Amino acid sequence: MTSPDRPQQPTDLPVTAAAAAAARTTGRAGNPTERFATRTGGMTASEIRALFAVASRPEVVSLAGGMPNLAALPLQSLSGEVAELVAQDGLTALQYGSAQGVPELREQICDVMAEEGVEGDPNDVVVTVGSQMALDLLTRIFVDPGDVVIAEGPSYVGALGSFAAYQARVVHVAMDEHGLVPELLTDALRSLAAQGITPKFLYTIPNFHNPAGVTLSIERRPRILDICREYGVMVVEDNPYGLLGFSGEVYPSLRSYDSDVIYLGSFSKTFASGLRVGWALVPPLVRDRLVLAAESATLCPPSFTQMLVSRYLAHHDWRSQVKTFTENYRERRDAMLAALETYLPEGCSWNVPDGGFFVWLTVPEGVDTKAMLPRAVTARVAYASGTGFYADGFGSRQLRLSFCYPTPERITEGVRRLAAVLEAELDVVRTFGTSARSELGRGPQSPSPDTN
Amino acid sequence: MTSPDRPQQPTDLPVTAAAAAAARTTGRAGNPTERFATRTGGMTASEIRALFAVASRPEVVSLAGGMPNLAALPLQSLSGEVAELVAQDGLTALQYGSAQGVPELREQICDVMAEEGVEGDPNDVVVTVGSQMALDLLTRIFVDPGDVVIAEGPSYVGALGSFAAYQARVVHVAMDEHGLVPELLTDALRSLAAQGITPKFLYTIPNFHNPAGVTLSIERRPRILDICREYGVMVVEDNPYGLLGFSGEVYPSLRSYDSDVIYLGSFSKTFASGLRVGWALVPPLVRDRLVLAAESATLCPPSFTQMLVSRYLAHHDWRSQVKTFTENYRERRDAMLAALETYLPEGCSWNVPDGGFFVWLTVPEGVDTKAMLPRAVTARVAYASGTGFYADGFGSRQLRLSFCYPTPERITEGVRRLAAVLEAELDVVRTFGTSARSELGRGPQSPSPDTN
Repeated sequence: MTSPDRPQQPTDLPVTAAAAAAARTTGRAGNPTERFATRTGGMTASEIRALFAVASRPEVVSLAGGMPNLAALPLQSLSGEVAELVAQDGLTALQYGSAQGVPELREQICDVMAEEGVEGDPNDVVVTVGSQMALDLLTRIFVDPGDVVIAEGPSYVGALGSFAAYQARVVHVAMDEHGLVPELLTDALRSLAAQGITPKFLYTIPNFHNPAGVTLSIERRPRILDICREYGVMVVEDNPYGLLGFSGEVYPSLRSYDSDVIYLGSFSKTFASGLRVGWALVPPLVRDRLVLAAESATLCPPSFTQMLVSRYLAHHDWRSQVKTFTENYRERRDAMLAALETYLPEGCSWNVPDGGFFVWLTVPEGVDTKAMLPRAVTARVAYASGTGFYADGFGSRQLRLSFCYPTPERITEGVRRLAAVLEAELDVVRTFGTSARSELGRGPQSPSPDTN
Repeated sequence: MTSPDRPQQPTDLPVTAAAAAAARTTGRAGNPTERFATRTGGMTASEIRALFAVASRPEVVSLAGGMPNLAALPLQSLSGEVAELVAQDGLTALQYGSAQGVPELREQICDVMAEEGVEGDPNDVVVTVGSQMALDLLTRIFVDPGDVVIAEGPSYVGALGSFAAYQARVVHVAMDEHGLVPELLTDALRSLAAQGITPKFLYTIPNFHNPAGVTLSIERRPRILDICREYGVMVVEDNPYGLLGFSGEVYPSLRSYDSDVIYLGSFSKTFASGLRVGWALVPPLVRDRLVLAAESATLCPPSFTQMLVSRYLAHHDWRSQVKTFTENYRERRDAMLAALETYLPEGCSWNVPDGGFFVWLTVPEGVDTKAMLPRAVTARVAYASGTGFYADGFGSRQLRLSFCYPTPERITEGVRRLAAVLEAELDVVRTFGTSARSELGRGPQSPSPDTN
């Protein structure tokens, strides 16, 4: 019963009773938290998540979450679609599939990306459980502890979470009203280069940024790519909102200029977030490693949800549906901007997003948006305070307002409540003698998300 | 436009043009594989996966995969169920949900686990994208590079993949016909303790082991737990097959003896693998960290698939369905065992599994199952060679035969083809003068999976 050609236990050191006893005593502590891996030190509950439980009470107007508004989905028609999927292709849809994703869907994904000028090969598409999983896996395969990742400041909280989970060091680069500032990116890369550091990649959300709401101008797109190429920095382009522009204009994606760019996409905002179908389009040299990482993470993405998305794309006018979604979002954005103009006190500034879900608001000096949040929730309005969108503690004078989910009436009411909370904060600031007057004027300052 | 209170770029070192130029030159290599993280060194394509493309050709009888046989699922009824889900609860099913999983499903999961004697709290259940994701995340939160994990030898290939992805060092402990051998576990832990090493956890599949087919005897269950407790080693119990026993007997799970055990479950084998719904039941001290890791991995598992499983459990006689599945598997196991008896040459031995999907076969000395595989596929039969189930290169005389998916007739034909391939191998062995005669007799040797 024993194998002669194989050591089944480590026997390279003699066992001493004392050592064994010592190890047993140490080991018996029984508290599993003492055994957590070092990397868990970077895992903290995001401020947004911590808020969800409270903010989801019906009396609270939540301007905090990033949930898409799905009310416009044709549920009756989808109900028939999914019934047919099970009846016709059930044995495939309910079975394991390939780690890379359903081939037909990968072809359709290339058609979707073509809307933004991307010429992708279905063989280079890896389907993931939401684009969050693509982000997580890319960080897994590229980032060693201590490696530098460049991200806009502010940046998507879920990306910062993945970077932290793999112990990346995030260096933020600021945006202005035209998106990421090329000169500041150059400065950052030059400074890092002087320290001998080549960042693993630039993580960027060029369109309708989360949380900043800004869009990288057409002029800057090739410049950003040139700078990254000059410094040998890969680009990871995260583009969940690209088709949700209010003017109808679709910007060419960074990937459309340069096939070395890693592109992340998602059906969460253009179809249905609860299916968790996203993807990465990667260079062939990256693909195999990414598929291996995906296999070790989940074996394969759900066949069922992929095939449902595939049928939806094939049988429904998904472009019209995206237009319908976008019209709803524009209506909501307009309601929010009007309410901000009407109700907010002096010293507040915000941007005017041309698409997506978010307005980024800077409040008067002396007000701390994180400290204010419990008082806002008491006043039945929730937002996402700015610090969650930075890896470095910045953002205490900023907050993110989402206009994607509530009705225009609720948005107006939410902003009215927020304005009252801000007025009360400013009263406190005045009482304690801190200047509540800002150097800035009041109103939309299209947009300077993370400055001042 | 610049922020006075925040360093937007690292400026702690002066930039010299020379340093910057040097970094740029170095950085421009352009091959992304040079930037892979160290951990990707452990990521290699599993032998089973590499085989899938070839083995899935229709003329090949695949005894390699672990795909459940779903033909017995009531597709018409499920079609109506899923149509109703979209029509009635579509806006929830298609929307983001909680990172921990749908609350109602977590309650039902506790009912499922109760079948095996587990008293779990829905608050301690974390729903994952298949139990593979639970495995991956547990490794993420517990394993630092170089940490030791104990696993049976052989062990589940997907677990070994996750352990490798986080740079764990796997120490195998052998099984016999009653499962993991307590004395060998003690020896391994004592030897590690003498080196000052406390393994992070024991990873074990107590029921109808993948790939070994054996089941941990009732007598040994508390002994294994006692040993682990004595040495301060956590236990991770992976139990996808527990309800698929051919005798109708359900073994009490390890978790039913000890609430510190981490329990992994899955609906992949009891309902539908393509939905990718699995779970972990963990102690409260582990739960929060696991949820955070899950959030950074996928934000949340798909609401849609969770709600479909929940409806299935609520509205269908899922226990009868599991019985139907099990009867199909028993019929297929019987066909495989009969064919092995009829066709296999002398010197082969195998076990008689009481449930699950797998027979573990040891071939005569001189035959290398990995080297033989391409010849088997040419002869239109596929299996999983043994080395993939070990982290240490053992297993070259073993192979795994799956009886879960093909029809009994195909299984018989597949074993007949395998026997012919083995005969041809043995001819070669004889020609080269290597003894093809084994010390062992021929036939079912219930079962000694990784010994010979």
